[in-house]
Amino acid sequence: MSRDVSNRKLRAGIVGGGRGSFIGAVHHVAVELDGQAEVVAGAMSTDPQTAAASAKAWYLDRSYDDYKEMAKAEAGRPDGIDFVMITTPNHMHFPVAKAFLEQGIHVVSEKPMTFSLEEAQELVKTVENSNLVYALMHNYTGYPAVRQARYMVRQGELGDIRKVLVEYIQDWLMAPEEKAGNKQAVWRTDPTKSGIAGCVGDIGTHAENLLEFITGVKIASLSADLTTFVEGRMLDDDANMLLHLENGGKGVLTCSQVAAGEENALNIRIYGSKAALEWHQMEPNTLKAFLRRSPTFTNW
Amino acid sequence: MSRDVSNRKLRAGIVGGGRGSFIGAVHHVAVELDGQAEVVAGAMSTDPQTAAASAKAWYLDRSYDDYKEMAKAEAGRPDGIDFVMITTPNHMHFPVAKAFLEQGIHVVSEKPMTFSLEEAQELVKTVENSNLVYALMHNYTGYPAVRQARYMVRQGELGDIRKVLVEYIQDWLMAPEEKAGNKQAVWRTDPTKSGIAGCVGDIGTHAENLLEFITGVKIASLSADLTTFVEGRMLDDDANMLLHLENGGKGVLTCSQVAAGEENALNIRIYGSKAALEWHQMEPNTLKAFLRRSPTFTNW
Amino acid sequence: MSRDVSNRKLRAGIVGGGRGSFIGAVHHVAVELDGQAEVVAGAMSTDPQTAAASAKAWYLDRSYDDYKEMAKAEAGRPDGIDFVMITTPNHMHFPVAKAFLEQGIHVVSEKPMTFSLEEAQELVKTVENSNLVYALMHNYTGYPAVRQARYMVRQGELGDIRKVLVEYIQDWLMAPEEKAGNKQAVWRTDPTKSGIAGCVGDIGTHAENLLEFITGVKIASLSADLTTFVEGRMLDDDANMLLHLENGGKGVLTCSQVAAGEENALNIRIYGSKAALEWHQMEPNTLKAFLRRSPTFTNW
Amino acid sequence: MSRDVSNRKLRAGIVGGGRGSFIGAVHHVAVELDGQAEVVAGAMSTDPQTAAASAKAWYLDRSYDDYKEMAKAEAGRPDGIDFVMITTPNHMHFPVAKAFLEQGIHVVSEKPMTFSLEEAQELVKTVENSNLVYALMHNYTGYPAVRQARYMVRQGELGDIRKVLVEYIQDWLMAPEEKAGNKQAVWRTDPTKSGIAGCVGDIGTHAENLLEFITGVKIASLSADLTTFVEGRMLDDDANMLLHLENGGKGVLTCSQVAAGEENALNIRIYGSKAALEWHQMEPNTLKAFLRRSPTFTNW
Repeated sequence: MSRDVSNRKLRAGIVGGGRGSFIGAVHHVAVELDGQAEVVAGAMSTDPQTAAASAKAWYLDRSYDDYKEMAKAEAGRPDGIDFVMITTPNHMHFPVAKAFLEQGIHVVSEKPMTFSLEEAQELVKTVENSNLVYALMHNYTGYPAVRQARYMVRQGELGDIRKVLVEYIQDWLMAPEEKAGNKQAVWRTDPTKSGIAGCVGDIGTHAENLLEFITGVKIASLSADLTTFVEGRMLDDDANMLLHLENGGKGVLTCSQVAAGEENALNIRIYGSKAALEWHQMEPNTLKAFLRRSPTFTNW
Repeated sequence: MSRDVSNRKLRAGIVGGGRGSFIGAVHHVAVELDGQAEVVAGAMSTDPQTAAASAKAWYLDRSYDDYKEMAKAEAGRPDGIDFVMITTPNHMHFPVAKAFLEQGIHVVSEKPMTFSLEEAQELVKTVENSNLVYALMHNYTGYPAVRQARYMVRQGELGDIRKVLVEYIQDWLMAPEEKAGNKQAVWRTDPTKSGIAGCVGDIGTHAENLLEFITGVKIASLSADLTTFVEGRMLDDDANMLLHLENGGKGVLTCSQVAAGEENALNIRIYGSKAALEWHQMEPNTLKAFLRRSPTFTNW
Repeated sequence: MSRDVSNRKLRAGIVGGGRGSFIGAVHHVAVELDGQAEVVAGAMSTDPQTAAASAKAWYLDRSYDDYKEMAKAEAGRPDGIDFVMITTPNHMHFPVAKAFLEQGIHVVSEKPMTFSLEEAQELVKTVENSNLVYALMHNYTGYPAVRQARYMVRQGELGDIRKVLVEYIQDWLMAPEEKAGNKQAVWRTDPTKSGIAGCVGDIGTHAENLLEFITGVKIASLSADLTTFVEGRMLDDDANMLLHLENGGKGVLTCSQVAAGEENALNIRIYGSKAALEWHQMEPNTLKAFLRRSPTFTNW
Repeated sequence: MSRDVSNRKLRAGIVGGGRGSFIGAVHHVAVELDGQAEVVAGAMSTDPQTAAASAKAWYLDRSYDDYKEMAKAEAGRPDGIDFVMITTPNHMHFPVAKAFLEQGIHVVSEKPMTFSLEEAQELVKTVENSNLVYALMHNYTGYPAVRQARYMVRQGELGDIRKVLVEYIQDWLMAPEEKAGNKQAVWRTDPTKSGIAGCVGDIGTHAENLLEFITGVKIASLSADLTTFVEGRMLDDDANMLLHLENGGKGVLTCSQVAAGEENALNIRIYGSKAALEWHQMEPNTLKAFLRRSPTFTNW
């Protein structure tokens, strides 16, 4: 697929994100925010009525009942979408991505890529055999303060990375919301739709990503302690991990969805041999830098 | 020893705490703060001149060159000290405590009690065979906000304790201060004076104590990852631990003395099945309580 | 003008906002954020080349060199704009608004409405004689926490409003940026382009608006102390005011563009006879509510 | 009076501060904190029984029923007090100070010095004709962070002082506590005991003192707006002031004792031509310094 996009906005499609979805509206805003793309087509729900109503509410040009049909139809149009955003529950990420890639359409997918290593390897092969972009969304890397942190680490301002404390803590699953019919809770606590990881997969991955994005250092090995606090739940809703970084640094990753009072607390502290950085997603405009020891009190 | 103390201040003695000491002046202020005790005698240094000069600066009535001599002399005086405060480096805690207990004088000791389990058991036996008080200092339990936290947990306001994150983080040993002659650094990084635990023994114990003091729940088991970041240092200067609490709760304890920019950051967050608490020693007057979910936004 | 807008996005035009503008890009994002409108036409600069390049960068359908021409042309098209956004320097707000209103096009204008009371009265008459919307932008009222504050005050949760402390403090004009050629500084410090108010008009008005928006109480009278700290500047760059509210409450409004270290600190504290609220624009997701006295410490 | 104090603690006396007093215990701790003084005598209440019981609770050597008797007796003893602390309600500051000065005893007095200018001038004359120290207590100047702030301003790190925002805000008088019998409220809202200033005299003076202590710049003139919010109260419980500093700087001083949720919020922000400082008494260990503009974001 090689279209001239020099004089127009990119055309985006969406799979998932229909009414009742949490993340759909977020992607709508995000993809159009810088004025370089607009959403024009979608298969927004497996329920045809919801799909149509959702597409109408977004003023989409084209609405589909089925993602395979959409992939085929869009690939055949001269004004078809340039890329698709996959915003479904986790179990559909792989089949949808594969369908669009096979039709020659770029893919931007919600995490996780797939449910298994085998699927992931198959996806990698599919992408490598194409000229297509496959992008996985990690939204928290977009904050200016996160970029500034990454820049400072890469410039060497922190020295060697010694210790990283990274956290992603929420409270929205502290009661059995899935039994009360909360749609977001239902699929996230169902292994057939969410995958084998609960809290760790849903938000712990953002913590891991943030650590590696900012420091440029990979986690070499870890020791994890996963817990399910809410009775009857099938997946973990809390976890603590000891981390060994590949550069010899150490760390802790803690995540929870049952921690009272925490809304969306993605926090990171990075201590280097020269200086340290601290960032909190709930107050994202502030990056605290400890570039040297505090001034010593001088009596006057 | 049974003296009438109904109409006078208690008389305190001190071993250690002489000039150049960090913690001596702190104990001086602390013991006299509520007007119920005053320091009147001391063996403030093993160096006789320093001992004398230190005692004079505090206007003590009696100064000794040797703690054994002091224990004996004070026990024999009608106006002798009621209790002794032990503020020496760690290796002297046990012998000094034993000497004063054997003379019938109450003991208030800096942590750790002793260097070994055997010594500790011997000390326990000595105390049990006396009518004396042996108290170990854990200063951070004295803050009003910590007492309030403890009270709220004990009242059941948090529900079951699910997750505790406790930290004690400093930066004062991030360079090899012990090689630069910093007296506090020298003994703390020397296993013969400090004992087998470095950062964990020096400050990690305060974190452990705070967790158990507030929650009333003991740590049942733990998995620890100790690190020495500064080259040539013989003891740990950083540690991360996964905790299993005896009530089924989980936790993380992290401590460091090499974390740039942190002065004395003893922090705790306690998440229960109903509510949560957060406290930071650097801003000790504030206890954050998350007693219920944040209010939902109501459009107006 | 009565068009059917039930099944499409609203069509917006823009006057001003071309390359080098600060606020143009902000309006672009803001107007399209909820997916209910898109910018399709503009007279983005008085310089024809800049106008054309700016419109192209935004993928606008139609670019004009002159706002009068634009008003006329758009009014005559079946697919013409539904409303125009005025984002020019202050001296053009009135003539541009008048031109579009006279062509039957709704207007959303940057503050201030006009330069003089006479112009404002003329504008009011023009709007009243039409069926058009004339809206003045006050962006800080859009935050969820601000809406929540307004809701709580209106529900009576604060009781009577006694005291309001409102601030808008920046530092970007602490040096004579206008002499260094900073385009934003040049027009803002030029009375012929900015009007008679400097800092007070530019940001003090947001503080006034926020106070009245949240509390629903008007300022009845005030005593103001305006200062120009940077030498050679013709307009105020700092001001402090005592406020009397129409309900008997009192207040302080302080604003500055020469206060070192302050980026965009719009802050408000509202004290009522029952409770208080506090909000800071730099951390906009947090609304602090003091609904009752702090808990008294209970010793344990 | 010239005694040798080289080898002993200073001997302090106290007038006021008996049981039920708020500030008495504070002074007790404060004067003995550095180990250089101890309280040995007092006339702690006008009620003889309370005076005796209060002195006994502090283990004082000598208790008096009357301050004049105390001044005379202490002046005559070889082991008499070196100085007296005056901690009574305001109306007694002047007569007590005069009585002790006339007996040759140094005075440390709670603010205000006196009730009138005439009294103050008389006191100045009395002090000047003696070799005695008369000190007025302004406790908030003692914080290390306040000293650091003062040092930085004096070193020129802020450049010229342009704008100062200083606040002292409490909520403890937001209801008519004086009618409920709160002893502290009763005298503070009674002009015969408190003087002509209510909130301004009680806490506004600390704000004024802090401003001048840190900056070294005097307030040249001010415009004040005093309010009494609680019905039936005879003195102001809230005030806002515009300040002109003698160096050309401007400022705002706001104080209140009826501001819901504020415990003891003494806050100051100082903006200079080069840098700025911010300090909050509720978190006294932190001094925020804005020594230069925030770093500009560098995309990575």
